[in-house]
Amino acid sequence: MNKNLRNDAQQIIDASIRAVLPDTAVERALKEFRPSSGKTLLVAIGKAAWQMAAAAVKCLDHVDDGIVITKYDHVMGEIPGVRCFEAGHPVPDENSFSATQKALDMVSGLKEEDNVIFLISGGGSALFEKPLIPGEELQDITNQLLASGADIVEMNTIRKRLSAVKGGKFADAAAPAKIFSIVLSDILGDPLDMIASGPASPDTSTCEDALNIVKKYRLRLTEEADILLHTETAKQLDNVTTRITGSVRELCAAAKEKCEELGYETFLLTDLMNCEARDAGSLLGSVLRTHANDGKKMAFIAGGETVVHLKGMGLGGRNQEIALSAAAQIAGLPNAALFSFGSDGTDGPTDAAGGYSDGDTAETLLEQGLKIAIVLDDNDAYHALKACDGLIMTGPTGTNVNDVTVGLIGE
Amino acid sequence: MNKNLRNDAQQIIDASIRAVLPDTAVERALKEFRPSSGKTLLVAIGKAAWQMAAAAVKCLDHVDDGIVITKYDHVMGEIPGVRCFEAGHPVPDENSFSATQKALDMVSGLKEEDNVIFLISGGGSALFEKPLIPGEELQDITNQLLASGADIVEMNTIRKRLSAVKGGKFADAAAPAKIFSIVLSDILGDPLDMIASGPASPDTSTCEDALNIVKKYRLRLTEEADILLHTETAKQLDNVTTRITGSVRELCAAAKEKCEELGYETFLLTDLMNCEARDAGSLLGSVLRTHANDGKKMAFIAGGETVVHLKGMGLGGRNQEIALSAAAQIAGLPNAALFSFGSDGTDGPTDAAGGYSDGDTAETLLEQGLKIAIVLDDNDAYHALKACDGLIMTGPTGTNVNDVTVGLIGE
Repeated sequence: MNKNLRNDAQQIIDASIRAVLPDTAVERALKEFRPSSGKTLLVAIGKAAWQMAAAAVKCLDHVDDGIVITKYDHVMGEIPGVRCFEAGHPVPDENSFSATQKALDMVSGLKEEDNVIFLISGGGSALFEKPLIPGEELQDITNQLLASGADIVEMNTIRKRLSAVKGGKFADAAAPAKIFSIVLSDILGDPLDMIASGPASPDTSTCEDALNIVKKYRLRLTEEADILLHTETAKQLDNVTTRITGSVRELCAAAKEKCEELGYETFLLTDLMNCEARDAGSLLGSVLRTHANDGKKMAFIAGGETVVHLKGMGLGGRNQEIALSAAAQIAGLPNAALFSFGSDGTDGPTDAAGGYSDGDTAETLLEQGLKIAIVLDDNDAYHALKACDGLIMTGPTGTNVNDVTVGLIGE
Repeated sequence: MNKNLRNDAQQIIDASIRAVLPDTAVERALKEFRPSSGKTLLVAIGKAAWQMAAAAVKCLDHVDDGIVITKYDHVMGEIPGVRCFEAGHPVPDENSFSATQKALDMVSGLKEEDNVIFLISGGGSALFEKPLIPGEELQDITNQLLASGADIVEMNTIRKRLSAVKGGKFADAAAPAKIFSIVLSDILGDPLDMIASGPASPDTSTCEDALNIVKKYRLRLTEEADILLHTETAKQLDNVTTRITGSVRELCAAAKEKCEELGYETFLLTDLMNCEARDAGSLLGSVLRTHANDGKKMAFIAGGETVVHLKGMGLGGRNQEIALSAAAQIAGLPNAALFSFGSDGTDGPTDAAGGYSDGDTAETLLEQGLKIAIVLDDNDAYHALKACDGLIMTGPTGTNVNDVTVGLIGE
């Protein structure tokens, strides 16, 4: 293993994760928050809600009231002035509904000079929900949509209209108070109306879209649901300011900055990578092989979230597959390395955050009888990388802004 | 369709192919040829042998004798002073053996001051062959290797030793004459001992390797074959000069040069891309989407030869799949386009060289009821691209140096 490259990799990993931790992201955003003269309330939803709320309360002078709604076992202690609730994820449950109702109650009757700090992270769609129809009816419609093969955009177009908070309705409920929304995005391209189903974002879909979906899939609806689907959602929200301060874009930017500090010429290839992991690793590895003899230190950065179509019975994750697949392409190159990791610190059903490989990896594996192509066909990257000291271990990081892959050409 | 980008694409396609035509490649290489005082002979093998030989004869003052061995229907007319033969491909036949014997006869007994111009193109492995054992025996050994799952490197290690020309033996046969070898490479990374099985390249495998393969797969051999496998091949060839003047590297370089002429800032990502076509298209498309708003004209170039694992029953080719897959990523971008084509002018079992897509492609297809993901699952890129005027048609080009993909960000 090339020790210099491995050391550089560790520094890049640490710096990138640090830049997208919930507290860092919230602190960065709150520098731009100019409170009006009234009350300041706080609502935090999602898997990182507790960390984001704790960071916000530290930064702000005071909070008049606050609510955190996060996953079970994700509340880490008390936050002064804030009520913390845990609820169901990925499927919403009664605790989701009751905590969401408390948030709606808290923001009702606010005045124009009041402020609502709204902190959003991944998982918010299930955790922050209050259906406008009975739970069984919502489940029935969801089942009809699933059975008919509707896509995620069609699902959301319908579900937004059946919710008291999604599709901009939470912002409407809090009006005329000012909402300052801080987003930790776990969806590539940061589509605001998709993240947590956009409680504080104008809805891009229309009634007409919704009714066309009903017709297309011949959905059976109660009269109550039918009326809701005929009700238009907000197309403009004048009381909302939004800051996306943690996303794969910041993750990539931080990796790039650290690479530059370490003397690499950097190339941000993409922050929207979403192809098959194995092929991403192969292509990025071939980029390294092509440039290995250019005579300068270079770093190629690709952020996103790849997919793995399982064929085998092994253990691994998308980032581990990227690293292992690249190992085949950079085999024998003394100055090349590639690593890939999830910003949340977990990759697939493993205890690793991702994988690292360099020009020696293929040879080291072969000495142990492991052929990369065969390991990948069995989706067993974890054990292969473990055998060559190629696992990246960070532990859970408390953030989730997708993954980043970095390919290095050293000296 | 963005007409400006389509026009730029056409100019890039034309210029790239022109740069790797056999005549261009041969002319470029022959500028460095310094003949010794003796005879000048010519041997051309492979699918582009006739074009390469015709170009060489035009450039040279004279040729004392010459032999072309190419595929059936690939001799386009007479070349002064050169005997042209057609033979079997991809499986060698009696015509391969007899024409190869004539080439061996022609170069036997040469003196140190004599010159052999040796022109190599893809397909040379089957076309240029003279086994040292009876044909049935060679076939039997090949069958044993195939049945046991031997890989291409293992196959070649054995077969080189059973041939009178492969593994550097043709250069040995022509010694002490000087060989000036011009290569049009169709294998990524240009491994000289793999192209046409390296008739004028030192063999990188050893007797020991060969005997280990015999042991590993328990090959049954005649005494004659056994003796040959015990005979070491040339590890150094002092009488050979090699110029690779046509390869995917030149194809990429020509595309890059044309892009720069057209005002694009260029990035050569790789010339070794060999992952799944669909995922290459997706990743390269995501590179375009990431940079679409950088505010400058940019061109991203990736050469290589991707693969398609067939799942559907449709019609298409790897380059068409790259273009169509990218279309999903760049959908809606007014200034992005991506195209990919095979330098030989044929992509898969179609009459197209490749495919072109831009920000309008996905919408145009949807209007016709075609969803990109579904078309790709059916491997039916040809019909979809045809429906949106996205096929690249060049006709057969007479060269074959793999494929190139170019992603453009226009103004």
